[in-house]
Amino acid sequence: MVNDKKGAILIISGPSGCGKSTLLKEVYKDIDDYYFSISSTTRAPRVGEKDGVDYFFISKEEFLKDIEAGYFLEWAEVHGNYYGTSLKPIEKAVSEGKLAIFDIDVQGHDIAREKLNDLITSVFITTPTLSELENRLNKRATDSKEIIENRIKNAKDEIKHFHKYDYFIVNDDLEKASKQLVSIANITRIKSKLFDPKLPESWLD
Amino acid sequence: MVNDKKGAILIISGPSGCGKSTLLKEVYKDIDDYYFSISSTTRAPRVGEKDGVDYFFISKEEFLKDIEAGYFLEWAEVHGNYYGTSLKPIEKAVSEGKLAIFDIDVQGHDIAREKLNDLITSVFITTPTLSELENRLNKRATDSKEIIENRIKNAKDEIKHFHKYDYFIVNDDLEKASKQLVSIANITRIKSKLFDPKLPESWLD
Repeated sequence: MVNDKKGAILIISGPSGCGKSTLLKEVYKDIDDYYFSISSTTRAPRVGEKDGVDYFFISKEEFLKDIEAGYFLEWAEVHGNYYGTSLKPIEKAVSEGKLAIFDIDVQGHDIAREKLNDLITSVFITTPTLSELENRLNKRATDSKEIIENRIKNAKDEIKHFHKYDYFIVNDDLEKASKQLVSIANITRIKSKLFDPKLPESWLD
Repeated sequence: MVNDKKGAILIISGPSGCGKSTLLKEVYKDIDDYYFSISSTTRAPRVGEKDGVDYFFISKEEFLKDIEAGYFLEWAEVHGNYYGTSLKPIEKAVSEGKLAIFDIDVQGHDIAREKLNDLITSVFITTPTLSELENRLNKRATDSKEIIENRIKNAKDEIKHFHKYDYFIVNDDLEKASKQLVSIANITRIKSKLFDPKLPESWLD
């Protein structure tokens, strides 16, 4: 008997404003057994915050050791506290047969690929054009002009890496793009690479 | 503006009796713009048969030339007539932006991979166990004992190649397996490899 409950990783990248969060909500509705990546931090929990829910609260020592060991896909120091995305909880989720989902930038994708290539399915999401991205960022009106300009600059750099991703979604129609992302999430765990090469023998049982 | 209507190929393999035809019906309901591979033959059309619908009716000369050129993924001579699956109409469908779907054996998959690797997404479908396959073949009661035995022998050989396929579906639950196959069909045409590497430049327009 063949077991097809495999752990795997789904990586989503794409410029800020391309609609990632909206699309991810559709995935959560459709997929069981997923783990959405939670950041780690060295700052103290605020009132009501829970370890493993809001953040993984870890010591500065552990954080620095894990940076050294290459576990962090991205990290930053802000006002003396460290924040970042560690591969540790992701590996744990995968070992439990879950689909680990995370939204990370292109550098983080490169690092994850180096470490866990066979487990990963990745998607680059974008608007149909740069000007459409500008429109969406301006419409949101939540960010300052400087932040928007910075996001646009990053977007121009990020899209140069689309070819490193397995799939490419042009989010010009929410229904179509949701269906595509949900489909990708659906099959991330049935990649042949995830199955034991000795499967043909056990299949004979 | 980025165009995401790409032509691509979806290859399905798996032992006779694993439920391929039933699963494919779900794909046809869900996908637009598909082309299901039609066999080519050198025999004369029977009354009511149409070229490009029932078969591609081609001359023996053309058939032999295309075997020579490596266009045939599989072929056989039966009572002096040739039958086979040619890559020619598949390439045409892809150039028209369609999803070409075909059901072929593991040798055919190998040949298609050699010729058109980047365009292909492939799926190996099987029952959870060999004994379940035997049950299904016996239940159908449409085939002689010899044919069933031959199918089981082939199945044991075929499953050894599951690792060459992109995806692996265990058809133990029709609803789950249909959803998986439809999902694969849905995203075959948004593989990053299918997009022009110069896309980041045109995205700036």
